[in-house]
Amino acid sequence: MRLRRDSRAPEYLAQDERVILEPKNLKGKWKEYFGNENPIHVEFGCGKGGFITELALRNPHINYIAVERAETVVYKACKKANRNEEIPHNMRFLFWDVRECREVFELGEIERIYLNFSDPWPKKRHANRRLTDRSFLEMYEAILTSKGEVHFKTDNKGLFAYSIEEFSACNWLMKNVTLDLHNSGMEDNIMTEYEKKFSEMGFTINRLEALKPQAHV
Amino acid sequence: MRLRRDSRAPEYLAQDERVILEPKNLKGKWKEYFGNENPIHVEFGCGKGGFITELALRNPHINYIAVERAETVVYKACKKANRNEEIPHNMRFLFWDVRECREVFELGEIERIYLNFSDPWPKKRHANRRLTDRSFLEMYEAILTSKGEVHFKTDNKGLFAYSIEEFSACNWLMKNVTLDLHNSGMEDNIMTEYEKKFSEMGFTINRLEALKPQAHV
Repeated sequence: MRLRRDSRAPEYLAQDERVILEPKNLKGKWKEYFGNENPIHVEFGCGKGGFITELALRNPHINYIAVERAETVVYKACKKANRNEEIPHNMRFLFWDVRECREVFELGEIERIYLNFSDPWPKKRHANRRLTDRSFLEMYEAILTSKGEVHFKTDNKGLFAYSIEEFSACNWLMKNVTLDLHNSGMEDNIMTEYEKKFSEMGFTINRLEALKPQAHV
Repeated sequence: MRLRRDSRAPEYLAQDERVILEPKNLKGKWKEYFGNENPIHVEFGCGKGGFITELALRNPHINYIAVERAETVVYKACKKANRNEEIPHNMRFLFWDVRECREVFELGEIERIYLNFSDPWPKKRHANRRLTDRSFLEMYEAILTSKGEVHFKTDNKGLFAYSIEEFSACNWLMKNVTLDLHNSGMEDNIMTEYEKKFSEMGFTINRLEALKPQAHV
């Protein structure tokens, strides 16, 4: 999703208390920041934020961080979240680039990572920009707890195949893999805005859960 | 592979000491039969047997059972194995139907199952004949040891997708998944006769390893 830059975004984000402005200061201190010992789940590339907002409402005992590198997208996601009657207390927005996630998250600080409809970067020479490329998986492995998981969905078959191979090459185990999420019987799926649109157009949705490599396997 | 029935097959098989004639008598007693405590690996649908024969030669400390339900195919596989200069001592042929594997293997008796280029049964109404259908996975789960694995490869993309979904639905974990085995860097792959032919024709080979569901996952 490419949006024209909105000049109101910086000012808006600066005054919204649920937007993290100085995340580097919170590295290793996120639980302290949230004020509890609840697990922390992040979404990398939250887009308009509908998915993670719904998750946060359903799971008050988990803390959520919605990460997005496009300032205008974070701005729109925040405005949308603030229109909600019920604003989840357990959710923050972070305007940040996933490639630099190690600068804001400490080793083993995150319990789960969601990747939803990440940019497929279809050209081979851009493969290392895909959020499931092994260069990213190494970062995820570092910031995840020992039982940490990545939950990934996409309508893009090429990206899904690439991702399965990258997870495998990096010794992640995979479970709950489906090539047609909406006919898979999964009951608690939360659709993203993109997912609603593309599944209505007849595209099937691929999904998998990957377990951080374990020493004992 | 469909072959005309060869009338010499029964007589030949009856006199080859590496062909198991009364497998039901060996249920729960395979280690006794082999005369050692080595793990037992089976191939379901061994075809001409080239794959498992090569495995048996490479791994003398594992016992192999090549299972095939087509009598004429077992006959040809045996004849071929007997032409080998070096006949692996740790390998037997079993003319049997996988659907009835519970009748010849005891709970937890098998360490690994190989499925290579199983019949894809492309029609939906035949799905339950596919060797990775959940009805088969339940049987495999029963006869495998607690750390047991299924190693599966196929050139058929539809069968591979179906298999991933069946393993997932039955809570198997998957590792070393590749959609292009011959470009995956796997070094000890043994090609089946079918695999040689189809990869030369340009078909890519899909492969995965699935871990029997664990109580602790």
